[in-house]
Order: sequence, then structure tokens, then C-alpha cells
Amino acid sequence: MLIRQHKGLKHFSNKFPFSHSLYVSKAVPQTQVDFEYDGPCMKTSVPGPRSQNVGAINFFCNYEESRGNYLVDVDGNRMLDVYTQISSIPIGYNHPALLKLMSNPNNLSTFVNRPALGILPPETFPDTLTDSLLSVAPSGMTRVQTMACGSCSNENAYKAMFIWYKNKERGHNTPSDEDVSTCMVNQAPGCPDLSIMSFMGAFHGRTLGCLATTHSKAIHKLDVPSFDWPIAPFPRLRYPLEQFTRENAQEEARCLEEVEDLIVKWRQKGKPVAGIVIEPIQAEGGDNHASPNFFRSLRNIARKHGCAFHVDEVQTGGGCTGKFWAHEHWGMDDPADIVSFSKKLLTGGYYHKDELQAYRIFNTWMGDPSKNLFLSEVLNVIRRESLLEEVARSGRALLNGLYELQAQYPGILSRARGQGTFCAIDVCDDATRTSILLKARNKGILLGGCGERSIRFRPALIFKEYHVHLFLNIFNDILAKHK
Amino acid sequence: MLIRQHKGLKHFSNKFPFSHSLYVSKAVPQTQVDFEYDGPCMKTSVPGPRSQNVGAINFFCNYEESRGNYLVDVDGNRMLDVYTQISSIPIGYNHPALLKLMSNPNNLSTFVNRPALGILPPETFPDTLTDSLLSVAPSGMTRVQTMACGSCSNENAYKAMFIWYKNKERGHNTPSDEDVSTCMVNQAPGCPDLSIMSFMGAFHGRTLGCLATTHSKAIHKLDVPSFDWPIAPFPRLRYPLEQFTRENAQEEARCLEEVEDLIVKWRQKGKPVAGIVIEPIQAEGGDNHASPNFFRSLRNIARKHGCAFHVDEVQTGGGCTGKFWAHEHWGMDDPADIVSFSKKLLTGGYYHKDELQAYRIFNTWMGDPSKNLFLSEVLNVIRRESLLEEVARSGRALLNGLYELQAQYPGILSRARGQGTFCAIDVCDDATRTSILLKARNKGILLGGCGERSIRFRPALIFKEYHVHLFLNIFNDILAKHK
Repeated sequence: MLIRQHKGLKHFSNKFPFSHSLYVSKAVPQTQVDFEYDGPCMKTSVPGPRSQNVGAINFFCNYEESRGNYLVDVDGNRMLDVYTQISSIPIGYNHPALLKLMSNPNNLSTFVNRPALGILPPETFPDTLTDSLLSVAPSGMTRVQTMACGSCSNENAYKAMFIWYKNKERGHNTPSDEDVSTCMVNQAPGCPDLSIMSFMGAFHGRTLGCLATTHSKAIHKLDVPSFDWPIAPFPRLRYPLEQFTRENAQEEARCLEEVEDLIVKWRQKGKPVAGIVIEPIQAEGGDNHASPNFFRSLRNIARKHGCAFHVDEVQTGGGCTGKFWAHEHWGMDDPADIVSFSKKLLTGGYYHKDELQAYRIFNTWMGDPSKNLFLSEVLNVIRRESLLEEVARSGRALLNGLYELQAQYPGILSRARGQGTFCAIDVCDDATRTSILLKARNKGILLGGCGERSIRFRPALIFKEYHVHLFLNIFNDILAKHK
Repeated sequence: MLIRQHKGLKHFSNKFPFSHSLYVSKAVPQTQVDFEYDGPCMKTSVPGPRSQNVGAINFFCNYEESRGNYLVDVDGNRMLDVYTQISSIPIGYNHPALLKLMSNPNNLSTFVNRPALGILPPETFPDTLTDSLLSVAPSGMTRVQTMACGSCSNENAYKAMFIWYKNKERGHNTPSDEDVSTCMVNQAPGCPDLSIMSFMGAFHGRTLGCLATTHSKAIHKLDVPSFDWPIAPFPRLRYPLEQFTRENAQEEARCLEEVEDLIVKWRQKGKPVAGIVIEPIQAEGGDNHASPNFFRSLRNIARKHGCAFHVDEVQTGGGCTGKFWAHEHWGMDDPADIVSFSKKLLTGGYYHKDELQAYRIFNTWMGDPSKNLFLSEVLNVIRRESLLEEVARSGRALLNGLYELQAQYPGILSRARGQGTFCAIDVCDDATRTSILLKARNKGILLGGCGERSIRFRPALIFKEYHVHLFLNIFNDILAKHK
């Protein structure tokens, strides 16, 4: 018996009270997720009495009772989850397809015997990769390296770029004795003064290599030694993008010019840029977008200067922008040299071009085949239920709703923006944002913040138009009553 | 039906051919592992025809058919595994206790719904920690932070030491505006010039922070930018340790003096040492031991100079030295400020003193509760079957066997050493080591190398005296025939 029956777990129409609401008259599609609940249901404020507040912990959860888009806490509060564990739940909680996978005795061994994948992979691993990660490989890429988390993915991608760059530089000859002896004591030329270019507002992880390319919040970086690597400005665009094309193009041109200047400057400093790393949408940094043209130009600059181009899709990858990879929106055949991922992909890792193959990328586990097993099934569900189209549809409804709300509450909301359901909106100030996020949570809507005063929307791929309207109604109520 | 029946899976006495063997006359204990095979069984050379050799891959495995101490490959070769996935399998393959855990429907949710542990932990997580990691917490430590792998554990442990050190330095006051603004662009004082002291021959992982403290093989470090951090000499001792106490004590005193000199020198350079990181036995670097007195003195030096003391138990932890933590052999009440782990613990992470608590240590997953679930059960098995005592017993038999073999083959073997089953022996040169490792594999014994010419023994905790004698007999045959 895989899925236990729950009270309130049934097909449902309009039972949820859409009172005082802008959206009450809208035709809400009846299609929703058949294994989940019929709406939020709050019993206490959150965190409730059974949640202890420790450090950064928000509240304790009852994952057994959580279903689909609904996260249930230890006090029995049931919340519509528009944040999904920092954007890492692809198809909702307790999806029947994933539970079924667990009940297949052929899969047990994959959970119980974790291999050292780099030396002793399971017989089935090549097929598992073909069914999972390689079936969604970005354009131009046929190779993938799994890793245990997002930070390790980026750390190892950086290493692959350094190794590739130095190999080029020494004409693919064997390293010198001096290279070999100096690297053992952290000195050049063995440990060369190479750099990775990143962007202000970027987030690429918190281990020491990643952290040198992360520039979203001081609290991430303070007190930790770093590298003198170049940091380019990320375009600060005006939204909606299509209303400000000329100003935005100017801003992007300014940033691209700075990118080239920095590449030259760092080469002259003796710290050449081996690779450029960028998010298709800066997430932690405040959901900052740039145009396809900006990314195409950046990719060309990287190629011109002999730098590898690394697209970090840890938060944007996996379908939430309406395409499986956000960089597919750029419309290029050859968009990147390296694409890293984690979160919704359930395993970390990176795709890379053949020439960035580095057999020296290695650690004990190098990923976890049990996560690839789940990913195969997630991809089956995405295909079977056409979830990318669903995301595009829900995303349009969400962004249109946010446009309406910011028109109605111009003193509170501004700069609605998004791609698919990967949306955000700015609040007038940080204090108001905190207040709205807490009110939303107590009304059964779980949201996250990003940047200095943005709210970010990161629902699962099964977040349907129905859920969009449910959210918009509650959110509208909160805004209407906000003082 | 959890455990399928296999041919050859039965209680067994002396069917395996102990011919031409030094150990044939030994009384081999009849106790072995009741769910495993009766010995190695080779059908082809390894890698066999069904294994493809790609990059660093040794061969492909059939984990479904592997049992206890025996790893089965895709060609049906069954090998006694004395390497255990780079020392990461605690109680053998397909242990019935772990398979049983998978069949409990109450556990399904933990596998299917991976939380962002730092903000939304499962209700049961505090209890799971109490049952698993906290039940084996090192002396003086009540706090633990889980992480996804060994590298992330050390990276975050280093960050915790940096944050702790700077907090002390600024008298626990809030950081200045200059700290906050400079850290965003990787500059001091916000990103301070602090250092971590490590030892020549050390291995602490391969991400950029860890790699700056790793000095075991050039291939790990070549082409990757690093930090100018101090590297102290690790004692080069003579074995058996008890025969060379005076020379070894002198060598250790020399290294300790150098440690203090480097701490002073790096402080003068403006890159003070925030923490010292060391393995209780240098593993990758060649199984280099030091005395309890060396470690006690080092811990005192760290305290004297205000540096945190970080013991990296990623490879030594989990029982293989005959105690749960290798540093317990030092006999101290207050051995460390931070103890990191991974591998046999199935999850990464680190224990730390209260004062090294840093709420800024954070990432999306911060570990994986499903691994803690397995760990709880592994710990139950260790206790129920008194596996630490078994390891001590098997370890004595193994080390004594290695002493006998090196006495018999002094031209090939030397420097046998070990603690528990965490043993090693040197081979006369690297080519001979490679030849012996391949011959052993084709005779059904899977071993690993470390350092320049050592063979390392890293069996599971269920490696009994029976398996030791089985190994010694085959190994003796190989050595006897070695040309």
C-alpha cells in the first residue's frame, strides 16, 4: 500500500473561500493534481507550538502527510508550497511515481550499496545516465559528470575549466617537473594564478572556490578568505523588459564592455580568466534577468578571449522556466562549454563539451545512483504529463496576475518579472516584504525572498493554473488588508 | 522477499583451496558473515569482457549479487573486497538490516522527499540525529552539522573556523561597514587573509578550499589555483613504532617545532592560522602514523596559539581502527574543536564545539536524512554484533600476518603498520605494487594503493579473522610465485 488515504485528499472544485477577492470571478480550471489536497488548511500560526525555532530553521515538517504542492508542518498546518525547499522539489511531495519506484525490489540494491562511481560503477549506470541526465542534455553536449551537490558541481566545473585552460596553454604537453613540484606546496606555476570571472549579484555556492564567484549577500562571504578574481557588473534592467528595450540594451552593452575590459585587465595582472560563470537568471541575487542577446554576446566574448563559458543552471534548470534549461531561451546551437545543475535534478553535476573532459575530476562518491533513479522517473512524469507546457501556462497566469496586483498596489509592489513559473516581484522595502511573507505563511502560502526586497516564486512543475489562482486570491487578500 | 537465494550462499568451512600456503595449518575460526558467500570465485581476468574500461573506471559491478565482504563484477567474478569503495562501505554489501529498513513503509517518505534541512527539517530529524550521529559523538562534542560529502564537510568546517577566529578577533562585535562592503568583492578586511595549516602528505578533499590543504599527489592539485597557506612536515616514522620509539620521538619533536615556527611566520606575514587540520592516520598520503603524544602536543600548540584544531576522520572514522574514532586512541578528554567525517558514516558532516557554532553555515540540502536512517541501522549492527571488538581482533590477525609476510619476503614487503584493520604495507617499488595488486585482483582479492608504493587495507567492519586468513593465504601464494 503505497499511498495512504487522507482526509481532504480528493478531487475538488471551489471549496476554498475565495472571498474579498479580485480573482473570485475567474474561471478556475478544475484540473489539479490528483494525489494532493484541496487547498491550504491552517490550524495555528507558523511556526506553531510543536515547531522549535533553532537557528535558521523556519519550522518542522511532516513530510509523510505532505502531498503534491502542499507542505504539512508538525502542527498539522497545510501550506501551498511556492518555494519547494529552495526550489529543489521537481514534482511535488510524495509523488506516486516516486513511491512506486521505491517499492520495486530491483531498485533496493541501488539505495543500499552506494558505489565509488568513478572506479566501480554499477552495471546499469551507463543506462541510468542515458535514461536520466543524458536524455535532457543541453544542446552541443554529450558528456555529464555527476556530483553530490550544487557547490561540488560548480567547484569541479571550475577545476575542469582550469585544467582545460592550462592544457591549452602548454600545448597539451606533459607538465614540467617545476609544475609538479610547485603544485604540491600551493605555488605557481603548478598552482597557477588563473581566475574565474563572475558577476555582481551572482550566487554559485558557498564552498571556497564557489564563494569567490558568489556576490549576492555579505553574510555568505564575510570572514572567509577569497581569490582576487574579476567581478563584472550584471545588467540592472527595467521591467517589463519589452517596455524598456532601448534602455536595457544600453545597460547590457555597458556591462559587456566592462566584461571585455576586465578580461584584458586580469590577463595583464597575470591572472588570466580561464572561464566565465553566469546564471541565466540571477536567483539569490534578486531574480535579475538579461536578454538572450546579452548572453549570446557574452558567449562570443568568452570564445574570442579563449575563456570557457559556464552556465550555472543549479536553480534555473529542470523545467521551471518553461524549457528544461533556461539557456534554451537564448536560441543558440552552441550555448555553453559547461552547464552545471543540482536541486530539481535531484543529483548535482555538470555537462561539458568533449574538450573539457578531465579524468582528474574525481572524489569518493561522485554522485549517487539512487538519485539518478528518481530523476529518470521525474523525467518520465514531466514527459507524460507535458509539464513544461503546464509550467509555461501556469507561468503566464502567474505573471499576468502579478502585473495586475502591482497595478492595483503600486505603493507596495513593482517590477514583476519571470520566465515560466520562475517569477519574482519587488516589495517597497525589506520590512514590508518580511511582513507580507509572514502573513502569507499564516494564510497557508509558503514563499521565499531573494535580493534586497524581492519575493521569489519557485513552485514545483505540477503547480497548475488552479494553484496560481488560489495563490493570487490569498495574496490579494493580504495586500488589500496590508497597512 | 528481501534477500534472494544464491548458489554458494551458505555456511561453509574449508572448501576454499588453501594449498601452497603458509596459513593452511592455522585454525581458521568458523564464524563468518551469515549472509555472504563462501569465498572468491573467478571466471575471467578483471576487467572481464563485459566491463568496459573508461577513464579511471576499474570495472563494472553487479551490486545486486554482491554480499557482505564480496563484490561481484558484471562477468560474475566474485572478489573478497578489502578496499570497500575507497573505504566507504561500513557493514558490507546488501546487509539484511539495511534491506529491511528499505521495506519499512514508514521510511519511504524520507527517501522520496529530500528537505532543505537547514530551514525545513522533518519532525523526526532531531531524533534521527540523536539515534545516529549524536550517539557516537566524539568526546567533548554535542553538536553536529551534516553535509552531502567529505569535501563539503571539510570546506564548511574551515569556514566555521574562519568565522570563529574573526569573531574572536573583533571581540564578538558586529562587523564594520568596511568588512561588509569589501567582502562582496573578495577583498580584505571582509575576506581576510586567514590560513589553515595542513601537513605534507595530507588529503582533505579536492574542492578549492580542501585542495589547498591536500598535499598527497600532484595529480590532485596541478593546474588549480590555491592559497598561500602554511604546510608543516608530517612525521616520517619508522615501523613497527614500538621498536623505534626514540628516533620517532625525535622526528615528531622536529615536526612540532616546525609547526610552531610556521604559525609565528604566517602571523608575521599577515595570514594568521585560524585552524590546523590533520588526519589521525594520513591515508591517501601513504598510511602515515604518528604517536598519541604527537597529536596531544599538536592540540596543545593549537590551543596556545589560538588556532582551532580540526581532526579529519573522513577515512579513519566509523570503527575501522578498532575504536569508533581514530582519535580516541590519543586518550584525551578534549581532543579537538572540530571532527569531520563522511564515507563509512554514509553522510558527510562535522562535529564541533559550541563556540564553533556558525548559523551562517548553510546550503540547500545540508546532508540527506535518508543517509542518517541507514547510519542509525549501521550503528545498531555495530553494537549488536560488537563489531569494534571484531575489528580489533581481525586487525591483530591482519597485522601479525603482514609482519610474517614481510619477514618471509623482505625483498618485496616492508613497513607493515596499522590500527584495527586500517593497515598498510610497503612494496619495494611502484611497478611491483601495480603487478601485485593486479595479480591479487585476478585471484579474487580487491585491494587499493596509497602513497608512492603502499598497499592499503580497508575492509568493512564485518571482515572477520576468517577473511583475514583467506586473504593472507591468497596473498602468500601471489608473493611466493612473484618473479
